[in-house]
Amino acid sequence: MRVVVIGGVAAGMSAASQVRRRDPGIEVVVLHRGRDISYSACGMPYNIGDPKRETDDLVILDAASARQERGIDVRTRQDVRSIDLERKTVKVRELDSGREYELTWDKLVLATGAAAARPRLPGLDAPGVFVVRELEDAQAIKAYLRATIVKKAVIVGAGYIGLEMADALHGLGIEVSVIEKAACVLPGFAPAIIAEAKQELERNGIDVQTGVGIQSVERAGADLVVRTDSGSVNGQLVIVSVGARANVELATAAGITLGETGAIAVDDGMHTSAADVFAAGDCAQARHLVLGRPVWIPLGTTANKQGKVAGANAAGADERFGGIVGTAGFKLFDLEVARTGLGEADIAAAGIAAVTAVSHHHTRARNYPGDKPITTVVYAERGTGRLLGAQMIGGEAVAKRIDVFATALHAGMTLAQVEGLDLSYAPPFAPVYDPILIAASVGVKQLTRVPKAA
Amino acid sequence: MRVVVIGGVAAGMSAASQVRRRDPGIEVVVLHRGRDISYSACGMPYNIGDPKRETDDLVILDAASARQERGIDVRTRQDVRSIDLERKTVKVRELDSGREYELTWDKLVLATGAAAARPRLPGLDAPGVFVVRELEDAQAIKAYLRATIVKKAVIVGAGYIGLEMADALHGLGIEVSVIEKAACVLPGFAPAIIAEAKQELERNGIDVQTGVGIQSVERAGADLVVRTDSGSVNGQLVIVSVGARANVELATAAGITLGETGAIAVDDGMHTSAADVFAAGDCAQARHLVLGRPVWIPLGTTANKQGKVAGANAAGADERFGGIVGTAGFKLFDLEVARTGLGEADIAAAGIAAVTAVSHHHTRARNYPGDKPITTVVYAERGTGRLLGAQMIGGEAVAKRIDVFATALHAGMTLAQVEGLDLSYAPPFAPVYDPILIAASVGVKQLTRVPKAA
Repeated sequence: MRVVVIGGVAAGMSAASQVRRRDPGIEVVVLHRGRDISYSACGMPYNIGDPKRETDDLVILDAASARQERGIDVRTRQDVRSIDLERKTVKVRELDSGREYELTWDKLVLATGAAAARPRLPGLDAPGVFVVRELEDAQAIKAYLRATIVKKAVIVGAGYIGLEMADALHGLGIEVSVIEKAACVLPGFAPAIIAEAKQELERNGIDVQTGVGIQSVERAGADLVVRTDSGSVNGQLVIVSVGARANVELATAAGITLGETGAIAVDDGMHTSAADVFAAGDCAQARHLVLGRPVWIPLGTTANKQGKVAGANAAGADERFGGIVGTAGFKLFDLEVARTGLGEADIAAAGIAAVTAVSHHHTRARNYPGDKPITTVVYAERGTGRLLGAQMIGGEAVAKRIDVFATALHAGMTLAQVEGLDLSYAPPFAPVYDPILIAASVGVKQLTRVPKAA
Repeated sequence: MRVVVIGGVAAGMSAASQVRRRDPGIEVVVLHRGRDISYSACGMPYNIGDPKRETDDLVILDAASARQERGIDVRTRQDVRSIDLERKTVKVRELDSGREYELTWDKLVLATGAAAARPRLPGLDAPGVFVVRELEDAQAIKAYLRATIVKKAVIVGAGYIGLEMADALHGLGIEVSVIEKAACVLPGFAPAIIAEAKQELERNGIDVQTGVGIQSVERAGADLVVRTDSGSVNGQLVIVSVGARANVELATAAGITLGETGAIAVDDGMHTSAADVFAAGDCAQARHLVLGRPVWIPLGTTANKQGKVAGANAAGADERFGGIVGTAGFKLFDLEVARTGLGEADIAAAGIAAVTAVSHHHTRARNYPGDKPITTVVYAERGTGRLLGAQMIGGEAVAKRIDVFATALHAGMTLAQVEGLDLSYAPPFAPVYDPILIAASVGVKQLTRVPKAA
């Protein structure tokens, strides 16, 4: 019995390890296109911002250890060209030798990940223009920063990876412009969160240009010139961070069904439409527990968990992935930003009648040293009072507070139930009414008000 | 219509404020024995440890503001002598003038709090021996520290208030001995948590003597000599922190029913056994959601919430207090310690068959600067897999992580459901598998093992 895994990062290596753990008798082959497997992609902006750190320290498990310690046949620099579902084979090209070979499988796990979106604009393939997606990208950016005098960087896209990169590069003493096509930074976040994030960027001297599209990148001597709708910005480094798309070409060519999001459709057991073929991680959909339907939110945690389920089931188990609620967080200079559940646009798209409650509070007890402001936005469904989502921005303990909301979403709690939670209180960590409880309380009051006529 | 509230700290002032908010037409009288109302008792050890802070900054609302801004008739230095349930009156003695008077009420709220336990041993009333319970205690300790040269302090009791005081006094450059009758510090916590707490105390040079009872305190010149079972310890300051008992004398004398814990029995609406009489806060019981029966865990958060419900219902509403899960946390030098739900002794007393899972993990992503160790203990019921409780100790983000377990307890989640939670992941705040998920995963494995024969 042989399990072949395509892709050796979070989902793929979780799947491969899980197969071996469940049944050491099963042969596991991982076919990975890049040189490095099993790295923390989410850690890359932070690593780039720290010249003392090597990119190697993002690698959780190297190919040699995976082979020796876990008995996984990891093959790097392997490009899978096609999947034959009938004959249960994959056609592989060794990138370094050019040699092609065929490999049979009994079970196949697709963990092909996602690729950074690259707008089709002139100059985006020029040296000095990077995306931040694979370890090779981080390595290339760090090498470029060592070899080139970068005084100014231009970041295209103000999603959380773009803003993490702004933070990282600013920390290296580089002047930063962020250019975002949407009307605001962090599109999809609540206006109250966006306003504070923008303030934090500006407080740190980041030039933020929203509602501005880019047209091209040109080289002018040592500079790269980013032409935008409203002029141009010069720099020596350009980071393009405008989203990602699931790598589904192999699956599509093999006739495996995609979901409505464009990622691979899977059930809770990570089975695809094809017998004995699983998919996990950034190439696959996940069930959103608040919406009750599949979504595509590519994140490392989900990839690890889905990979584990895919691996277990490829080894004959009957595990289920429990679904997601869309929890994510990141550091923005001296602030933490995090969210879980639905945002305004999701709620509107789902046609749910909801209230929004914004509250401002503190992270610690009044007068306790180090106390910092924190802002919370909660969404709840009218009528039922069900919590739909929450977002926070503040000086500390934001991400782990969002986890309380995430847990409440998993449990299907109402906002009134959140208000009644017995949360820890101690002056160094929380006011007597935690910001979570205050936010819920403000929301509950909103829910009991007579709704305005539509 | 007049509501009389006995006690003006967390529960009492929450009740009084809530009455006024619900119905400004109701007269509200608060009878408070001390000089200061509405202070943060939980903040006192931290305040004592910071000579730059005044104890005033622990006062959330002073009596004058309560009168002027909230229209509450706050009367300080009033000792309520008795309650007449038939005639709906209280007999009050003004402590400063000695004058006695009677006051009629339509609704009565008992918020008499709890008193520090003081062992009946010779010398415990000597100058220089203090408890830490009321604001007057904190004021007296701070005054004593200003007036006296304290090189060494002896703390009797290694519960969390005793250890907070050890931290606070050590921070003032005072040598500290902690003497605890039980076999360990933090009785009631899990052995793995206790071991690390003890290590942290010793790392900071705290002399910890467990399994040692005290016999007396004697004065010898400038010193206080604490005689113990195993010798004696000299110091210039003694803090006695050996627990508390609910102040129920007034209620008992009036014929109001106490619960099995010795605190006042209440329903979820905070009604006592007497018509139109409510009780809230440290003098009252609360329903434990995991045990499904009343317990007495006197904490500030519960007091505030119960007070709010008592006040609302005294004003004619029909609110319910949702119960507690026993969540608490505190700072111990460079560590945070927190717990929620049942501990080992609670589980044994309730006769629940349970598994215990201990796990060691990290607060941030691997190689992310500032990453700190964190230890988690989870308890889950055999058979059902239901989460029963959790405890954590670690370098950061412990208290807010415990809140995730607290939320899971409110929702009645199994450990497997906790393992499936979609929690936030970002290198500065969490590893890809949060310590919460790791702890749940270890516990789930324990649950699936064949139980040992009893």
